[in-house]
Amino acid sequence: MTIEIEKKEKGLSRRDIITGAGKIAAGAAILSMGGIGKVTEAEAYSYASDFKYKKLNPREVGQISYENYFKRWCASSVIAGFVAPLKKKVGGAWKGFPIDAYRAFHGGLAGWGALCGTLSGAAVIIGLSTRDTDTAESMINDLAFYYSYTELPSFTPAKILKAKIHNMTMAGTPVCHISVGKWMRSEGVAFLSNERSERCARLAANIAMEAVGMLNEYAANGKYSPKHQLLFNLAANGITSQNNCSDCHGQNPPSPNETYQTLKK
Amino acid sequence: MTIEIEKKEKGLSRRDIITGAGKIAAGAAILSMGGIGKVTEAEAYSYASDFKYKKLNPREVGQISYENYFKRWCASSVIAGFVAPLKKKVGGAWKGFPIDAYRAFHGGLAGWGALCGTLSGAAVIIGLSTRDTDTAESMINDLAFYYSYTELPSFTPAKILKAKIHNMTMAGTPVCHISVGKWMRSEGVAFLSNERSERCARLAANIAMEAVGMLNEYAANGKYSPKHQLLFNLAANGITSQNNCSDCHGQNPPSPNETYQTLKK
Repeated sequence: MTIEIEKKEKGLSRRDIITGAGKIAAGAAILSMGGIGKVTEAEAYSYASDFKYKKLNPREVGQISYENYFKRWCASSVIAGFVAPLKKKVGGAWKGFPIDAYRAFHGGLAGWGALCGTLSGAAVIIGLSTRDTDTAESMINDLAFYYSYTELPSFTPAKILKAKIHNMTMAGTPVCHISVGKWMRSEGVAFLSNERSERCARLAANIAMEAVGMLNEYAANGKYSPKHQLLFNLAANGITSQNNCSDCHGQNPPSPNETYQTLKK
Repeated sequence: MTIEIEKKEKGLSRRDIITGAGKIAAGAAILSMGGIGKVTEAEAYSYASDFKYKKLNPREVGQISYENYFKRWCASSVIAGFVAPLKKKVGGAWKGFPIDAYRAFHGGLAGWGALCGTLSGAAVIIGLSTRDTDTAESMINDLAFYYSYTELPSFTPAKILKAKIHNMTMAGTPVCHISVGKWMRSEGVAFLSNERSERCARLAANIAMEAVGMLNEYAANGKYSPKHQLLFNLAANGITSQNNCSDCHGQNPPSPNETYQTLKK
């Protein structure tokens, strides 16, 4: 499964919305012919890693991620959720793991609002814990689908550390700015609020727990069965992207002024 | 410098474009008062890491990153650019570093088009090579500014490995989808082309070289002097974001259909 086109993606009608069936077919042809340019770099391969994974308790990892958020933010809190139990269960390379070396992935990279740091943190753990590029990429791709198309956060902490929150939202994207923005609008709170902080902490727990499920399957079976095929997005319009095109390409995005007014209330 | 508002950002007129001076002032006030919610998690701190950095040759790192791209893609090729010379110069923890464990950060995370993988790769190296969250975050923030507001790629390889390319573009964002899309429109090529591949390989070299400059300063002086202050984006409209709002919030974004038609030519 190096380059495979997803013929049909359940529940996603990107092809109808945007490009039309003919265009998708053309896009698929490009790939199946091996590409206009030979995308020889697309080959998958195995790699070595000293980081061994053993089956973890999802709830435990989620709770640790949640608790760590208020110090370490999104990326490093997910990493902490794994490293804490792996230090005990496996030891080895996990001992002395520099959890906070990844802290700046928070807020979509140092607050730039690009990739949600919970996914960056999980991707680091998945990459280190697996041994071939296809397995890592398949898990991370599935995790991006989970992140984007699930109402989150659904995690309920053992004890609420920051604030009661009431809403879950579907981000439609792994992009921090859009994901956080949608939830803030739904909850009616500002970025620098305890509620927003609580939401991101619970989201970190959700993403960590989903990743635990994948890695536990891998630990048990020596392989992972992807839920979604790779490169659906690439095939759809010839450029890497998620499926939330109308969030930017169209009339849907709230104007920054409107957003700001909403959040000032 | 835990939370500091950038009063004035040279060359960026976000406040005028979007929110107006009064609104920015309100946003700044929220932060200077310590926040609506106490953002106690914003504290900076030092951390341990076994990864030692020694001064590297930017051009050498850039060239290695460029060459590695065609196998390893954006994130891991930047990492390879650093790890190859650091293995020789420093050894230690860099020996056996799992370069490919980070490969799935390519294409904005497994092709989802969020954060450009060159920045993810550089952020991993910066995080491992520094020792406190403020230094790492300042470097990565400056790197995101460089990425977003520089005409790239400007790197010229020792030998062109994939294709001649002619254009440089300013991404205005660290987001892969927008960055790659703008360059493709400018160059008039599709995603699965040798030209696009060549562009991303050269971009990997540029980002790696810029990061080398920062880490070399840190190695020489034991500290890094930030070029941009943190949290400008956060203060501007109460949500993490970059400065390219009108790329999505407005009439500027090309429709996906238009983009596709352009690229089919």
